[in-house]
Amino acid sequence: MDKVYVHGYDSRENRRLKDQANTLVDLLHSDTSYADGSRILEVGCGVGAQTLTLARNSPNASFLSTDIFEDSLTEARGALVSSGLSNVQFLLADIFNMNLEKQSFDHVFVCHFLEHLSQPDNALAILQDLIKIGGTITVIEGDHGSAYFYPDSDAAQKTIQCQVELQKRTGANANIGRELYSLLKGAGFSSTNVSPRMVYVDSSSPGLVEGFTKNTFIAMIEGVRESSIAAGLIGETTFDEGIRDLYRTTEQDGVFCYTFFKAIATKQ
Amino acid sequence: MDKVYVHGYDSRENRRLKDQANTLVDLLHSDTSYADGSRILEVGCGVGAQTLTLARNSPNASFLSTDIFEDSLTEARGALVSSGLSNVQFLLADIFNMNLEKQSFDHVFVCHFLEHLSQPDNALAILQDLIKIGGTITVIEGDHGSAYFYPDSDAAQKTIQCQVELQKRTGANANIGRELYSLLKGAGFSSTNVSPRMVYVDSSSPGLVEGFTKNTFIAMIEGVRESSIAAGLIGETTFDEGIRDLYRTTEQDGVFCYTFFKAIATKQ
Repeated sequence: MDKVYVHGYDSRENRRLKDQANTLVDLLHSDTSYADGSRILEVGCGVGAQTLTLARNSPNASFLSTDIFEDSLTEARGALVSSGLSNVQFLLADIFNMNLEKQSFDHVFVCHFLEHLSQPDNALAILQDLIKIGGTITVIEGDHGSAYFYPDSDAAQKTIQCQVELQKRTGANANIGRELYSLLKGAGFSSTNVSPRMVYVDSSSPGLVEGFTKNTFIAMIEGVRESSIAAGLIGETTFDEGIRDLYRTTEQDGVFCYTFFKAIATKQ
Repeated sequence: MDKVYVHGYDSRENRRLKDQANTLVDLLHSDTSYADGSRILEVGCGVGAQTLTLARNSPNASFLSTDIFEDSLTEARGALVSSGLSNVQFLLADIFNMNLEKQSFDHVFVCHFLEHLSQPDNALAILQDLIKIGGTITVIEGDHGSAYFYPDSDAAQKTIQCQVELQKRTGANANIGRELYSLLKGAGFSSTNVSPRMVYVDSSSPGLVEGFTKNTFIAMIEGVRESSIAAGLIGETTFDEGIRDLYRTTEQDGVFCYTFFKAIATKQ
């Protein structure tokens, strides 16, 4: 299957993902913890941004965290060792070739993962097979169509749309957050509960202005400048105007809104 | 000043506003209550949709609730009497001609009000004068630009945009929610705190599907069909397709998202 990442895996990108993880940890993960002794599969762990939080919040559960990039796993393993945690094993594997025993996990956790897949429904079917009956899957995904701001700007919306369109061309879906309910129900999970986690940023929260609006969101959009222009999606002038307008939302009177969606569903 | 309502004040519209108020009471108002003995001004109370909740949640505070429509006030007064509450007085007045004493209120409350004004900054300046130093203003407004859904639909977004454009032509602003932080800071209030109240609707919440997506939001958009077509904003076919697509989001796998913004700020 085609699994092309629009997010580059260079060092700036890694820093971006860690900034994002640090700023948003409470919002996204504070209500996730697993019972002592349970066994959890995390697919697409990347550099371990979420893995550390998972392992720390459930110190007596054991995790198997997978990714398809060896460099990412090396970094994740290093971060785990530095943190003194030892309840995570790592596995270099593609979700479509994991060779894991059916119904061998109490729970599955994926975060910022399904958005990259051209066949999220197939991925969910595979994950469902791996979960014991009565176990759960937790899925967290963003939705770029949930981004709006003050002052509003057509150019800024167009630059964001470049990222959405580039992901779409790889078969991926940057607006997948709103779709989680449909995907999980469609995959046959029961008791699907979706809760939006909205990030509202104004200048009364300078940590979010820096950590989220600038270093996470705008940095991500800036990262697709060359590929968007090369693909003919937008002109240089409009792109740069859009980026300027996004930075404008980080000023004293600006507001930036974005929503992540967290879904928890049960294997029946 | 021009104060033209896009929402019609016919009986269907009144029902719509009451449905909305009932469904969203907890989300919007559960954290609003005022100390015993305090005096609160509610401007733009309409048919009393919020007034009853305010009066019930703060039974030992006294309210002065104003509106510019006598019929609305009559209905609001009737609802108050039916509910057995007696801590609200009503006043037929335009905010720009209220003739109230400066610094005579402990708090001010407005809900779904600023969106209708062409000069919300002037209105806030007037309200600020009426609040005692150290008192607060609470402002709740929607933001139509926060509406997104699954399945996504260009036609549905275009029908929503008709409502936004019609309001804009009266000088009003259907996307004012994201602007509250800027407006309140600009008006000189301090400690401005804005919290988004996102309404997430999927078929696991049939009450919200009916009470919010269908009877509040879609009903509102349906209400501007004739005026939108007459104004040349959209063709009949596209408008009707948009409405069908909005109803599509209320089916078993559909999702509808909308965000209200609640701001509380202090008179310094």
